[in-house]
Amino acid sequence: MSEGPAPLSRLTAELSQLPGIGRRTAQRLAFHILRSDDSDARNLAQAILEVKEKVGLCEVCFNLSEGPRCRICDDASRDESLICVVEEPADVIPIERTHEYRGLYHVLGGALSPIDGIDEEDLRIAELRRRVEAGGIAEVILATNPTTTGEATAMHIADLLRSSTSVTRLASGLPVGADLEHADEVTLGKAMAGRQTLS
Amino acid sequence: MSEGPAPLSRLTAELSQLPGIGRRTAQRLAFHILRSDDSDARNLAQAILEVKEKVGLCEVCFNLSEGPRCRICDDASRDESLICVVEEPADVIPIERTHEYRGLYHVLGGALSPIDGIDEEDLRIAELRRRVEAGGIAEVILATNPTTTGEATAMHIADLLRSSTSVTRLASGLPVGADLEHADEVTLGKAMAGRQTLS
Repeated sequence: MSEGPAPLSRLTAELSQLPGIGRRTAQRLAFHILRSDDSDARNLAQAILEVKEKVGLCEVCFNLSEGPRCRICDDASRDESLICVVEEPADVIPIERTHEYRGLYHVLGGALSPIDGIDEEDLRIAELRRRVEAGGIAEVILATNPTTTGEATAMHIADLLRSSTSVTRLASGLPVGADLEHADEVTLGKAMAGRQTLS
Repeated sequence: MSEGPAPLSRLTAELSQLPGIGRRTAQRLAFHILRSDDSDARNLAQAILEVKEKVGLCEVCFNLSEGPRCRICDDASRDESLICVVEEPADVIPIERTHEYRGLYHVLGGALSPIDGIDEEDLRIAELRRRVEAGGIAEVILATNPTTTGEATAMHIADLLRSSTSVTRLASGLPVGADLEHADEVTLGKAMAGRQTLS
């Protein structure tokens, strides 16, 4: 009985499988769900089931989608000559929030990482190549993470596509609001190397 | 599309209703659930539904229970002459974990707090009184929280029961492993007032 009735222990165990949710947080959440309205608990359970049932991948860009094509690929107002390449579907969200980008996406499904056994065939690089070779693409913007694997992936894709289209990479540098004193030297080095003329 | 497909937004919204789960954590959890195995997601949804369906309150002590009586009240090896009074079902778990206590419990369902509109009738104080007046209770241990409302509740119950049985309160003092330098003065004052003879 040290953990309460079996269904409560079971819910605690299930919740503690989620990333960043430890045993104590899981228990607090389980008690909260137990105390909440029946309808709240049902809505949460329903939302979990629905996300698995209804969300798949877009057949064009491999972003998350409720139908065969995602809302971005289906949106006639987007600029079809631009493809922004990201590692994961979650990376599309912050880019969309900037409202700075009106082109399409291509979700690789990860980054090249030979030590983790992730090679070119594990990512959707061939599909990207086909989209570019089909023509009409003015620019491919590489927005993989500014990490070792993300950079390596960007370099690799740039080598593949450079002959077919213009390939650019997101700028690396100091985040807005940062101060120089606390900047790490790699970021500061990138900011220095990527300095821009003020006109 | 800034938040992804509708089922994902819905799940994110449901998760962010949980206590301590902000928008960003909710989104991270939603993506995790989306990527996890179908069976993991189903198990989590099922556990949420089951905890609401199957867990009720014990008719004796108001602890959480799968049947009419909780496992502690049903356990013939527990000492029926001791009642430990706690505010919430969640408070039973840490006390059980100590393995120091072999008596029964009584869950009040909160603490007296007139400014929040929680009066004696909102708690299970009358039920506690009936259990004590039915006889056979050697000691009532008040284990409400060491907070203003918890202390007030303990004082109130002590006044009600003192003529019928022995009433004790959990010790307040320095937590094990703490150091004096960083102890707050209220705790230190309690530790001083409650000092014990070493024999």
